[in-house]
Amino acid sequence: MLHFENDYNEGVHPELLKALIDTNEENLAGYGMDGYTQRAADKIREACACPQAQVQFVTGGTQTNQLVINSLLKSYEGVIAAETGHVATHEAGAIEFSGHKVLTLPHDAGKLKADDVAQYLADFYADGNHEHMVFPGMVYISHPTEYGTLYNHEELSALAEVCRSYQIPLYMDGARLGYALGSSLSDLSLAAIAELCDVFYIGGTKLGALAGEAIVFTKQNMPKHFTAIVKQHGALVAKGRLFGVQFDRFFTDNLYEKIGREAISYAEQLKALLKEKGYRFYLESPTNQQFLIVANDKLEELGQSVVYSFWEKYDDYNTVIRLATSWSTRQADIDALAEVL
Amino acid sequence: MLHFENDYNEGVHPELLKALIDTNEENLAGYGMDGYTQRAADKIREACACPQAQVQFVTGGTQTNQLVINSLLKSYEGVIAAETGHVATHEAGAIEFSGHKVLTLPHDAGKLKADDVAQYLADFYADGNHEHMVFPGMVYISHPTEYGTLYNHEELSALAEVCRSYQIPLYMDGARLGYALGSSLSDLSLAAIAELCDVFYIGGTKLGALAGEAIVFTKQNMPKHFTAIVKQHGALVAKGRLFGVQFDRFFTDNLYEKIGREAISYAEQLKALLKEKGYRFYLESPTNQQFLIVANDKLEELGQSVVYSFWEKYDDYNTVIRLATSWSTRQADIDALAEVL
Amino acid sequence: MLHFENDYNEGVHPELLKALIDTNEENLAGYGMDGYTQRAADKIREACACPQAQVQFVTGGTQTNQLVINSLLKSYEGVIAAETGHVATHEAGAIEFSGHKVLTLPHDAGKLKADDVAQYLADFYADGNHEHMVFPGMVYISHPTEYGTLYNHEELSALAEVCRSYQIPLYMDGARLGYALGSSLSDLSLAAIAELCDVFYIGGTKLGALAGEAIVFTKQNMPKHFTAIVKQHGALVAKGRLFGVQFDRFFTDNLYEKIGREAISYAEQLKALLKEKGYRFYLESPTNQQFLIVANDKLEELGQSVVYSFWEKYDDYNTVIRLATSWSTRQADIDALAEVL
Amino acid sequence: MLHFENDYNEGVHPELLKALIDTNEENLAGYGMDGYTQRAADKIREACACPQAQVQFVTGGTQTNQLVINSLLKSYEGVIAAETGHVATHEAGAIEFSGHKVLTLPHDAGKLKADDVAQYLADFYADGNHEHMVFPGMVYISHPTEYGTLYNHEELSALAEVCRSYQIPLYMDGARLGYALGSSLSDLSLAAIAELCDVFYIGGTKLGALAGEAIVFTKQNMPKHFTAIVKQHGALVAKGRLFGVQFDRFFTDNLYEKIGREAISYAEQLKALLKEKGYRFYLESPTNQQFLIVANDKLEELGQSVVYSFWEKYDDYNTVIRLATSWSTRQADIDALAEVL
Repeated sequence: MLHFENDYNEGVHPELLKALIDTNEENLAGYGMDGYTQRAADKIREACACPQAQVQFVTGGTQTNQLVINSLLKSYEGVIAAETGHVATHEAGAIEFSGHKVLTLPHDAGKLKADDVAQYLADFYADGNHEHMVFPGMVYISHPTEYGTLYNHEELSALAEVCRSYQIPLYMDGARLGYALGSSLSDLSLAAIAELCDVFYIGGTKLGALAGEAIVFTKQNMPKHFTAIVKQHGALVAKGRLFGVQFDRFFTDNLYEKIGREAISYAEQLKALLKEKGYRFYLESPTNQQFLIVANDKLEELGQSVVYSFWEKYDDYNTVIRLATSWSTRQADIDALAEVL
Repeated sequence: MLHFENDYNEGVHPELLKALIDTNEENLAGYGMDGYTQRAADKIREACACPQAQVQFVTGGTQTNQLVINSLLKSYEGVIAAETGHVATHEAGAIEFSGHKVLTLPHDAGKLKADDVAQYLADFYADGNHEHMVFPGMVYISHPTEYGTLYNHEELSALAEVCRSYQIPLYMDGARLGYALGSSLSDLSLAAIAELCDVFYIGGTKLGALAGEAIVFTKQNMPKHFTAIVKQHGALVAKGRLFGVQFDRFFTDNLYEKIGREAISYAEQLKALLKEKGYRFYLESPTNQQFLIVANDKLEELGQSVVYSFWEKYDDYNTVIRLATSWSTRQADIDALAEVL
Repeated sequence: MLHFENDYNEGVHPELLKALIDTNEENLAGYGMDGYTQRAADKIREACACPQAQVQFVTGGTQTNQLVINSLLKSYEGVIAAETGHVATHEAGAIEFSGHKVLTLPHDAGKLKADDVAQYLADFYADGNHEHMVFPGMVYISHPTEYGTLYNHEELSALAEVCRSYQIPLYMDGARLGYALGSSLSDLSLAAIAELCDVFYIGGTKLGALAGEAIVFTKQNMPKHFTAIVKQHGALVAKGRLFGVQFDRFFTDNLYEKIGREAISYAEQLKALLKEKGYRFYLESPTNQQFLIVANDKLEELGQSVVYSFWEKYDDYNTVIRLATSWSTRQADIDALAEVL
Repeated sequence: MLHFENDYNEGVHPELLKALIDTNEENLAGYGMDGYTQRAADKIREACACPQAQVQFVTGGTQTNQLVINSLLKSYEGVIAAETGHVATHEAGAIEFSGHKVLTLPHDAGKLKADDVAQYLADFYADGNHEHMVFPGMVYISHPTEYGTLYNHEELSALAEVCRSYQIPLYMDGARLGYALGSSLSDLSLAAIAELCDVFYIGGTKLGALAGEAIVFTKQNMPKHFTAIVKQHGALVAKGRLFGVQFDRFFTDNLYEKIGREAISYAEQLKALLKEKGYRFYLESPTNQQFLIVANDKLEELGQSVVYSFWEKYDDYNTVIRLATSWSTRQADIDALAEVL
């Protein structure tokens, strides 16, 4: 079987594995107080051209979103997100579980529009009853989005400007950030993201880490006593080295972006192949996730040689599916796919 | 000034006040253990023709919704509501604050449609990812709705049937229930509501109580140790007699429904008057709240003699306002309104 | 039966009732925006000699404690209290329910000692693992305490000094504050309390209100958008006048202190009577609550004419009971008690 | 430097690392749906002689405690623990953060006594005010305890009997369970633990896993839709294989117990050595953690060659420190220690 169902079905990237093996017998301090974790943070600060950035590593994406949103919002605030945003749809209500409403706005291929956010905020404060409503206290975006699409510099700047004018943080969910950074069509560098966002995370799991995400607070805005906050969310791990060692490696010799770039080059081949074979695309995605509209009666046949993800029903006769390349895709996988399509 | 802005701008209905005065010097047990509270519950059980009903009195509407929803839902469940439902809009996120998502569906003049709920539930369980989503664990409706509209017996039965087939409770917010019961156009008795809903509340504040709402669990489904749950929500009052005495009186000589009926008769006069004067109705409401579309340049004039509620912007030139009759409306108010319109 | 079991077994003080009746038909704004509520706050500011004080009225004591503690603490902070403090014992875990640990210290006749608090805080910050522990973020005291005892000016000043040196607020639960203010043995005025505490509440329910407590933030430290916070705790009532009218009257002609003083004078008579009859006191209380050690075989006899509160087991042969005077005690009650003892 | 400060200062046990390497390129389902996770659960069921056990893997200990306690307790319930229990002291209030009080009882060398628990429960239900208090809804113990001590079969049976008579679950925190199973002085097998406890966890991190703990529900009492509950606690990881592969290996060829046994044999050597050198033990621990009372002026000297953990102040002149052996201790470490002591 050819695996294109997602970007986390193999274990760990060989270079990260090597780093884990090489450091395995070193005696290191726990809870992220070790040197690898400190160095990983330093390298992230450098890669972001953001010397004042504060970095915290945690295990996974939903945990990250819950922790960041809950620790930055006041109790009476909610977070604005696209209706397709991960926090609004596939986190089992983790945001509400921690006490906050997700305030959803329509999406444009997975993206929030700055104008919509500005209008929502203006309407909220114009409403005489707003003290009886949920205050919009943050804007959440994902980049790449759940549909693989990307914000450009202009769009992100516009969102940042709206947020600043209302003094609320702009938060970017970068679960797949490497695939954005690796896309030739993206004009947003890590430094630009660090400048425009108040907080974002650099996803590890989907870029080849065993587990691990790096939260970056860019404006000296990490909540006070954040270690205690992380701990009370159940998110502080004893062997913080697991994250420190992997991210130290990710940000050595530019590995993180290289991984993204390589996966995108496979995605480009995949797109070309699918177009050649006459597949119909649900939307234009410049990153590692590709969404196709496939007739229901062709799905079973496809499923005999390729593992894909069901995405959603398109209509009574067609289905939207996802094919993804990743850090673990090999040229041989693409070549084999060319054979069976 | 003529007051038609809402149904809680005077203090307490004279009959309830008399009951409070008459019992004031009696020595009574605290925390709802007094005889009046017990008798009020008995009378509610009788009025609902529901001998097994379990009754708890608390102070206000948002508190009631938070308490009922939070105590009946599992942590991973949310509550289905119309997008215009009070819990979705004007409770400052009290439901999310207690950990649960409000799952909104489109409304039809403030009402949820059984078919929409059934479709939502079917789609949810058909989605292979639903363990990563918020489980729909309850259906919330308000009756009258936020737009003054009413469910009829057929509509409520259909909702109840959907809920039963998925084994989730149907909860009715009856903040203004008396105005539904008092409407000649309603075919839903208290007994029918008690039969069809798993839990509902009988609103006191907006029917003339100083404060107080009666929560009715109809299926022996009051959560175990509910007193402790009420207490930990900050909702248990020392002088429970405040609610007991008022509701004992509400349900003596059918006062609760009489109050509703009288307010509706004033509302009928109000509607006739407004129609006669050429006012344009936003929708057809059979209860005490009437919604009008008024040209912006006429609002100021109206506001010189009548206190109304701003509801929402209609378009650039018109505004939706609310005029409400209530337990405190007098014939003289209507007559005076006829003069100034 | 003679009622000395608590201070909330009758309804409402006659003067407050009169104020409620007199204002009943006035049309007032909801949610505490009415003139009585504003005037009540003004009068409280004046009585406290604290012009910058911010006042919010809510329904009951546990609700107040939960709201104040939860809104002032950071998520990683707990509240220091005596092990006998109401928040530690008889609020069904309302503080923990809102996410915060109650950090208990030994009590001295119900009181916290400043030295113990200082030691606890010093030990906490000296512990190298304190980022893995619950930060002490507030000190809670009750005055009078659960045992009727009082802090004097020196003791409260010492607690305030400790709190200020650690920059954490000092919070006083004044459920029975009037009985402290009315005690001739107290050297703590409202003005001194407002100066030394960062936040406190003036209890209404146990001083004769139907319901209602006044929260006073003395240092311009009311959390931003407190109305929304109150609402999401289910604590905002539509007819805020209920509290406004009563507290406006409480703080007119010094009624609040007068009520306390009168109850204390009855308590003095009660103490004299009990001493004369040879009753054994559990501790010396200068306020309206008196605690006695009574042999178990005498309890039944006493219970035939007097309603008292069971407090706790003293040993195998004796029980601690409470007798309380209150705003509703009359000379005739004391005289009748003299007959039956 | 010689490292005896804790049991998590190296990375991963070589056998587990080998298993991770060997399976790294396999394409596996996410979120614990892979075959290794299923097999690991099967092997745990077999090792526990508990075919009906339900197993869930999560990342760390505090997360596990919060998840288990919060998902099994009703909102009005707290958990009974020794005052030295990890949940009561060093989890940054994670249990209270999730809404529940930790009800502490005195400890006996870190252990809860069944008689104390029985007395607490009896007193609670005998108290007429218990509906205003926190219901004891679970008993939490750690085994080994925070002081390295162990329950024997009789003690655990007595606790289980008390819990069953009140129908509340007995929960064992097994962060270091392997070191209990590996102790020659322990008469509690995994099977006995599974029979007597309603839920427990098998600690991975401190026995050599990179991360990972196995929660075992023994009485078909895993909460319904537990995946959603795990997710909303931020505890569901995408690459569940990380836990599956390691625990599959732990429970192949009895590795988990072997690791514990070996560490205990080093601990025995350590104890003998320390006794020989005249060190004073704080208490008698049969597991891998040893607690010593050391004069303050000798600490610095010791610290020049050995890394130990500060535990607590003993008196003005002495300190309690911890030395721990672990899965990563080697004979050479013990031999080197003999040289420097």
